[in-house]
Amino acid sequence: MGLFDFLKPKKETASIARDRLRIIVAQERTTRGGPDYLPMLQRELLEVIKKYVNVDADAVNVKLIKEGEHDVLDISVSLQEGSA
Amino acid sequence: MGLFDFLKPKKETASIARDRLRIIVAQERTTRGGPDYLPMLQRELLEVIKKYVNVDADAVNVKLIKEGEHDVLDISVSLQEGSA
Repeated sequence: MGLFDFLKPKKETASIARDRLRIIVAQERTTRGGPDYLPMLQRELLEVIKKYVNVDADAVNVKLIKEGEHDVLDISVSLQEGSA
Repeated sequence: MGLFDFLKPKKETASIARDRLRIIVAQERTTRGGPDYLPMLQRELLEVIKKYVNVDADAVNVKLIKEGEHDVLDISVSLQEGSA
C-alpha cells in the first residue's frame, strides 16, 4: 500500500475528472490538554490555498478527527476548471 | 492499516518525546502542466503554523514528491516543549 493511497478517491465518481487538493494536518500530542488550534488553523490554511487556486467554495470537505494521540484535520477540495 | 498509520514515526527515536505536527498537501492533477505552486504554498503554510505553535526552525523537514498524477508536499515539524 503506497504512502499516498489514502489520496485515491474511494469510488470512481462519474462526475467530470477534476483536479483535487487534499490537505492533512496531523498533530501527535505527547501530553493531553493544550489549546485545540486545528479549527482556527483550518480557516487560515484555506485562505492561503485560495491565493493559489480557484477553490469551489461548496466543494470543500473538512473532517476533524481525534484518533489516539493524533488530532487530524483533513481538508479535501475540488478545484474549479482551469483553476491551477 | 489505519488511514493515519503513515503518521507513526518510522523508528522509536530515543530523543525525548516531543509533540509533532505533520502537514501533507497533495494535488491530484487530471492534466499535466499548470503552475507548480506547492513550493510557494510551503512557505506560507509554515508562516500560518508559526502563529499557533512554536516551531523549532531547524526541526522542520520538507519533502516534495511527484508520484504519478499526485504532487505531494510533506512537511513534518517537531514542536518545542510547551509549544502548543
